[in-house]
Amino acid sequence: MPKPPLELIKRALEEDGADYDITTLSTVPERQQAQARIIARRAGVVAGLAVAAETFRLLDERIAINMLVEDGATVQPEQVLAELSGPARSILSAERVALNFLGHLSGIATSTARCVRAIKGTQARILDTRKTTPGLRSLEKEAVRLGGGQNHRYGLSDGVLIKDNHIKAAGGIVQAVTAARHAAQHLLKIEIECETLAEVRQAIKAEADVVLLDNMDIATMREAVALARHEAPRMLLEASGSIGTDPERLATVAATGVDFISLGALTHSAPNFDISLEFA
Amino acid sequence: MPKPPLELIKRALEEDGADYDITTLSTVPERQQAQARIIARRAGVVAGLAVAAETFRLLDERIAINMLVEDGATVQPEQVLAELSGPARSILSAERVALNFLGHLSGIATSTARCVRAIKGTQARILDTRKTTPGLRSLEKEAVRLGGGQNHRYGLSDGVLIKDNHIKAAGGIVQAVTAARHAAQHLLKIEIECETLAEVRQAIKAEADVVLLDNMDIATMREAVALARHEAPRMLLEASGSIGTDPERLATVAATGVDFISLGALTHSAPNFDISLEFA
Amino acid sequence: MPKPPLELIKRALEEDGADYDITTLSTVPERQQAQARIIARRAGVVAGLAVAAETFRLLDERIAINMLVEDGATVQPEQVLAELSGPARSILSAERVALNFLGHLSGIATSTARCVRAIKGTQARILDTRKTTPGLRSLEKEAVRLGGGQNHRYGLSDGVLIKDNHIKAAGGIVQAVTAARHAAQHLLKIEIECETLAEVRQAIKAEADVVLLDNMDIATMREAVALARHEAPRMLLEASGSIGTDPERLATVAATGVDFISLGALTHSAPNFDISLEFA
Amino acid sequence: MPKPPLELIKRALEEDGADYDITTLSTVPERQQAQARIIARRAGVVAGLAVAAETFRLLDERIAINMLVEDGATVQPEQVLAELSGPARSILSAERVALNFLGHLSGIATSTARCVRAIKGTQARILDTRKTTPGLRSLEKEAVRLGGGQNHRYGLSDGVLIKDNHIKAAGGIVQAVTAARHAAQHLLKIEIECETLAEVRQAIKAEADVVLLDNMDIATMREAVALARHEAPRMLLEASGSIGTDPERLATVAATGVDFISLGALTHSAPNFDISLEFA
Amino acid sequence: MPKPPLELIKRALEEDGADYDITTLSTVPERQQAQARIIARRAGVVAGLAVAAETFRLLDERIAINMLVEDGATVQPEQVLAELSGPARSILSAERVALNFLGHLSGIATSTARCVRAIKGTQARILDTRKTTPGLRSLEKEAVRLGGGQNHRYGLSDGVLIKDNHIKAAGGIVQAVTAARHAAQHLLKIEIECETLAEVRQAIKAEADVVLLDNMDIATMREAVALARHEAPRMLLEASGSIGTDPERLATVAATGVDFISLGALTHSAPNFDISLEFA
Amino acid sequence: MPKPPLELIKRALEEDGADYDITTLSTVPERQQAQARIIARRAGVVAGLAVAAETFRLLDERIAINMLVEDGATVQPEQVLAELSGPARSILSAERVALNFLGHLSGIATSTARCVRAIKGTQARILDTRKTTPGLRSLEKEAVRLGGGQNHRYGLSDGVLIKDNHIKAAGGIVQAVTAARHAAQHLLKIEIECETLAEVRQAIKAEADVVLLDNMDIATMREAVALARHEAPRMLLEASGSIGTDPERLATVAATGVDFISLGALTHSAPNFDISLEFA
Repeated sequence: MPKPPLELIKRALEEDGADYDITTLSTVPERQQAQARIIARRAGVVAGLAVAAETFRLLDERIAINMLVEDGATVQPEQVLAELSGPARSILSAERVALNFLGHLSGIATSTARCVRAIKGTQARILDTRKTTPGLRSLEKEAVRLGGGQNHRYGLSDGVLIKDNHIKAAGGIVQAVTAARHAAQHLLKIEIECETLAEVRQAIKAEADVVLLDNMDIATMREAVALARHEAPRMLLEASGSIGTDPERLATVAATGVDFISLGALTHSAPNFDISLEFA
Repeated sequence: MPKPPLELIKRALEEDGADYDITTLSTVPERQQAQARIIARRAGVVAGLAVAAETFRLLDERIAINMLVEDGATVQPEQVLAELSGPARSILSAERVALNFLGHLSGIATSTARCVRAIKGTQARILDTRKTTPGLRSLEKEAVRLGGGQNHRYGLSDGVLIKDNHIKAAGGIVQAVTAARHAAQHLLKIEIECETLAEVRQAIKAEADVVLLDNMDIATMREAVALARHEAPRMLLEASGSIGTDPERLATVAATGVDFISLGALTHSAPNFDISLEFA
Repeated sequence: MPKPPLELIKRALEEDGADYDITTLSTVPERQQAQARIIARRAGVVAGLAVAAETFRLLDERIAINMLVEDGATVQPEQVLAELSGPARSILSAERVALNFLGHLSGIATSTARCVRAIKGTQARILDTRKTTPGLRSLEKEAVRLGGGQNHRYGLSDGVLIKDNHIKAAGGIVQAVTAARHAAQHLLKIEIECETLAEVRQAIKAEADVVLLDNMDIATMREAVALARHEAPRMLLEASGSIGTDPERLATVAATGVDFISLGALTHSAPNFDISLEFA
Repeated sequence: MPKPPLELIKRALEEDGADYDITTLSTVPERQQAQARIIARRAGVVAGLAVAAETFRLLDERIAINMLVEDGATVQPEQVLAELSGPARSILSAERVALNFLGHLSGIATSTARCVRAIKGTQARILDTRKTTPGLRSLEKEAVRLGGGQNHRYGLSDGVLIKDNHIKAAGGIVQAVTAARHAAQHLLKIEIECETLAEVRQAIKAEADVVLLDNMDIATMREAVALARHEAPRMLLEASGSIGTDPERLATVAATGVDFISLGALTHSAPNFDISLEFA
Repeated sequence: MPKPPLELIKRALEEDGADYDITTLSTVPERQQAQARIIARRAGVVAGLAVAAETFRLLDERIAINMLVEDGATVQPEQVLAELSGPARSILSAERVALNFLGHLSGIATSTARCVRAIKGTQARILDTRKTTPGLRSLEKEAVRLGGGQNHRYGLSDGVLIKDNHIKAAGGIVQAVTAARHAAQHLLKIEIECETLAEVRQAIKAEADVVLLDNMDIATMREAVALARHEAPRMLLEASGSIGTDPERLATVAATGVDFISLGALTHSAPNFDISLEFA
Repeated sequence: MPKPPLELIKRALEEDGADYDITTLSTVPERQQAQARIIARRAGVVAGLAVAAETFRLLDERIAINMLVEDGATVQPEQVLAELSGPARSILSAERVALNFLGHLSGIATSTARCVRAIKGTQARILDTRKTTPGLRSLEKEAVRLGGGQNHRYGLSDGVLIKDNHIKAAGGIVQAVTAARHAAQHLLKIEIECETLAEVRQAIKAEADVVLLDNMDIATMREAVALARHEAPRMLLEASGSIGTDPERLATVAATGVDFISLGALTHSAPNFDISLEFA
């Protein structure tokens, strides 16, 4: 698990003005101690607890945190996730930033878990995309893993995914795959986007390692899978293109036999997961 | 309008590995020029165009951008928002980060505009909250304004909002308001959260400037408004607490006569707005 | 109290070359331990002790610091403020930066305390301004509070103060106040600068929350106060404009009945407060 | 001349909230252009003009600045230092930070120039010290040069100055000078602090390159100079220790024949120099 | 080609004190213009020219640079690489940092080119490793490419290379490969280090994509190649382990039939390439 | 000893992707503990141990490190330098960065020690130069000291070294020395580069403190030394200019009687020192 991103947390506390919380400074006595609990308001998968804990610690290292569950846990409504104790002022001043992380990341993990459940029993796996919130990619991709999903490439420099504009520029699918294989680091597989069966045939000919089946209807996708399994049994197949998070739709796509389904909505449209902090 | 946040854009390009886009470097010739268009796929309010433009410029200052609409514009499906021309490689390498900003911020502006429309004709105004994505508060609050909403305080250091834990710590509503008024900068009004009519009465007695009516049912809220208008005609009233973005619900809340409705969902649960980039 | 600004302290140690102090490295043995005392050389109010302590700790966490007074304490000449013990080299290498913070901030707190004393018994309070040293605003405003003063707005984004150029641009006092009230966050009061009684009358008409009486002679200021108290009893009044720190002048201004006197000299012209470090 | 410190200027604009100046945004139309002049209110030596110009440019590169004098110029009351033209909003939003730099640095240059004038005609030169405002050393030392003073070492890593605690730790003056000469870079001279004639004799014996005469009364200082000139004609002599900026006192110290007088007050207690910005 | 790393160049100029070059400021007149040439003193492959150009520009944007060759060019002794013109002071102050980049990176490119030449005509390619200078990986890996080498993975997060300690921890080669394939992003191949033929057999069984033949003698390496080509024709083979840059040794290793030879010495022990700057 | 440069270490860990080491995360169990030893593979002088220790600690503060030798120690092949214990994952993920520092810095210290040994028994001392790796100057200069060498000036702002272009610009050696002495801080000596005896004579006349004998053949160098010793006995003499690290050549140069020999190769061409980490 990557370590909590201290710089990002510091910036978040700073943008919230957390070290000069006028309301708290004027109404809560300096030495008052408090006990507090972080509580899930819905059922789902929790992510961001380690980040939230670090948020409290960064604001005031005297805050003690007792985790009752770990990131990745499936929780029930009203379940207590962690207990805090320490200076009341500091707990109040860090609360919002900590909950903002928790709500956002648990929203992603929960949404991912639903998608994973929808295709349970098939060979397919749920992938994220690069459609993440600027500055939060590392955390959001971790939340996807915590929800049971798998990560696609992290960014442009650590994976090859050839899209339509690249194909046009290179002069065709075979030329593009060959050029990429020559230039890329030898540990990288070559993935290429195809919209038609003709393109899938070209990709097979080019010996692409992975084919992304983009915006295909279910019938075409099924044919593409059959074709690839027959001609290139080691080739991996990924379905993509506005598939969304509807469980039935996901099940149908998985049933075509693809290896992966990648979903931008996991990270860019997951609703917040409701978590709150209560003083004892 | 605040200037685009260069550091955040740089970090976003960096986390995407945009300056070493293997796929593009290996398939697109170095000197190839391209024309591209940024296109809305849905109807809504656009936000983030200036940030997107800066993203392209930061990656490669040779990219020329012609804005066809400005941030805040209401757009139709398939409407072209901007035209780009410049080195094909650079446009492709910056595309995802630019669209991530655009989709996220336009999602917020569009969601805000819907809420604003829902209460049109009432005296009430839609407010955001501090429930924003860590690191993006400034942009998200700007998106709310572009959608026709109004900002609540930016953070803890530039506004006073006394909540239940503060009241307990201070020993009561009157004590809390008095303490805050004494400590806060003289240009700040004092807002306090009330859950019952008894508490509203206390807030009136304490001469609070603004009262947040928290989690009240509609009947109670209506009584609270009547009470306040009678006893403290200059007092401002804000409804809050899991109100959500359902238009009918919003209209009902606005009809109670409150001055403001604040909504966490504007910023923490707005679905992405679908925008794409197409090569000519 | 905001936390000591670690980045600023690090930069200060870095600009002083404190981690490669040639003189100390060549003349003081590595393992030599030392006891030292921080001593005030004048009477005044101390500020910056927490920052100084953090400076020593940042250079070498083995330095132990025993505070004998807290920030905000009134001290006498030759009073010992804190005792240090630890590696002699580190104490010597951090000394200058720590004392630079202490001398500068205690100078501001002491100067503020003198101004506050000068108007004791009146209703008026001493305010700072935005005329602070670049990069040190947070610390300097804290020093003002420690000296018994009150802070004006922190910066341009968290308070409204309409000045002559704004009034001209908006087309008049009433227009400017109305525009600001519409655009500003609902927790902010609206302050406007007036130089004449006619302008004060306009401000009252515009229902400004606070009026800054700028560069008025005492007679006019007295009239302005009378006018405002009569017409707009809830309006706050602030005197400003090259008032300086002379106690008699301050008493005269306070006697006009204004609520606040704001003074740039508190932060931009306070002489250094003499503090030194002595080895035992 | 060092280049303006962009990071510091950015931080100063940021701490002032200059990119979200509510007052200006709500009262000044977006496209309004303005002409403005920066005017000295007193006689003195100007420093910080290049920094101020960079401040305006950093906030908005469309602001054009026409310098009428350069940093280091001696100016008269009401003299116009520079003319600005550009977007009215941006000029107003950057004004305070630009003036804060100008007032602080011109205060130092002006104070330095007075001290230099006080000892004109003697062989002595005015030096600054490391008693500078944290984060501003580079600018403050430049202001000293602009005022006609000379810089002492920049920090601990680029010069050797052996003080009493170092001498004690090393076991004596001769031992300390020898140790420092051995450890320091071969381009550095060795300076040592002496409080008595006996110590000066030791320093001569140790072949120190420079002796700092610390807190000596005038008679002793005169004897120390005579002694050193006789025994070690190439040795440089520096007077220091709470000398202050009184012209007569400075003249008396210079008359002893020392080569340098170093003054902490140049940088830590110079009053602000009054400069303002006026719209045309 | 990645863009020159501005932050690194700034830090390098800063650590060299380039914006306060006492010698130049005191001996070269402010307005003096100069012409200068950057000249190779040896034969080799040039890298770092774009970085050097950026270094001059960052110090002073008035310096004009005319590149006579591009990064990657093979040059002869005394060949002029670029011409500069601009303020003499700025050229002198930036010279050392620019040459430090050029000498270091051209040293790597030149050393790489020698290794590539040594195995010309074989199927093998020269790879770098992660044994790079801290903070310079991106530039050093680019220099390797400019010298005709190919990059191995950039870092730990964008490639899988299972070493002996991983194998032990996982419980065997098959277990390790399986675990990695499950956890890693689907675009990554799995590479594993083998020291014996028995281990190579295990790797084949585990269907590893790439095998690193570590510290094998030539005879064993030849057998390993034969084995792999027979049993797993798509498997890639990489020789590694203190091979060094001796051309004969490299030719012998390449002759075994491996696909890649990886060399730490390319980046950690390449001698500086002698380049100097001359004024016209 | 300067403290380990945390920012540089963090950047190095970041560029290595050390907090998301896919291989280790997928093959090594989270709770597995390990013992490891850092071992020198050659004889030499160790530098960078404190930095390496900090690297492990920064990645995971639970790693305990037991240093068996200190930086600067002379070690034998296969000597154990330090023992580590802690989470196996963290040790593996930090290993490469730690060893990259150790190998690079120990290479410099070892190379320096060889040069120092070559001139043992003479009066001369070995100096480094500004020809360092960008971003690593502080560490590389420390490594030179650990190897027994002495540092030349750190950068352009803390020492004066007048070269040929400065002399031309100033109009001659005497003019250049005089200008520099006037402008430089009074604690700095003035060094000037001379290529001929005539120039050395000018430098003596100008009373330069140090003369750099640049690219002189041995006979001329000997004459220059004789001349300087006779005419200016306090003047320091430094030999420089592509001298290299050959022991015989160094001994010959030292035998001319110069005080210093400065060598760019110490820092820009020292081969890596082979150090590895082994699990117990």
